[in-house]
Amino acid sequence: MSGKKAPWRSGCPINAALEIFGDRWSLLIIRDLMFRGRRTYREFLASEEGIATNILASRLKSLKASGIITTRPDPVDGRKQIYALTKKGLDLAPILVGFMEWASRYEKTSMPLTLLRRMKEEAGKLVEDVERQ
Amino acid sequence: MSGKKAPWRSGCPINAALEIFGDRWSLLIIRDLMFRGRRTYREFLASEEGIATNILASRLKSLKASGIITTRPDPVDGRKQIYALTKKGLDLAPILVGFMEWASRYEKTSMPLTLLRRMKEEAGKLVEDVERQ
Repeated sequence: MSGKKAPWRSGCPINAALEIFGDRWSLLIIRDLMFRGRRTYREFLASEEGIATNILASRLKSLKASGIITTRPDPVDGRKQIYALTKKGLDLAPILVGFMEWASRYEKTSMPLTLLRRMKEEAGKLVEDVERQ
Repeated sequence: MSGKKAPWRSGCPINAALEIFGDRWSLLIIRDLMFRGRRTYREFLASEEGIATNILASRLKSLKASGIITTRPDPVDGRKQIYALTKKGLDLAPILVGFMEWASRYEKTSMPLTLLRRMKEEAGKLVEDVERQ
């Protein structure tokens, strides 16, 4: 918990979390970083949901301001940024896995159950790795 | 998984879940039903985040269409509706608990850790109860 003044509409932590994400695009960027190995603006832009470039730019800025992602210059081309999740961002893994499990059970999606199990294991390992640090 | 054609922007289950919620207000209504014992339009409207009445009406309609909530007439006043979560709605408990834990750890919120633990237990029980049915 940070010491800064709470800017939220209420003291409820669920509300605080939802205000940070604002809309679904932020969580899809986190998905791309966490499970799909995407790390650049161009890679996020290529996601099949078709995020608009202005929305992507604003969500990246706000995720960075919230301390969920960091950036560093690409060692090969210093004009490009490489994005990565912080510990705060990696700690969202159980929520993303929760959404995966819920939607795989109730909605028509393309994720085979074997892949879901593998991603769940991977997310578990991510969280363990982070907790060991 | 339902047999109907997938209307989503991609086959990813995380995306499907986020498209259903669209924005944070839907998950706050689910929070009110799950953890705060709220069951009527008037009670949802009174939430401290200040949901607008037109947004509340549209989100209730869409949650019902998605099979996440049901309604029945109030036995005392048949013009009013009583709202309840379905099994599909109750199965969102781990995600809401995930958001609570994450935001309690990283953001300034008003939830004491003892209350968080109690809500986590309650959510666990909710899920168990549902699974026994």
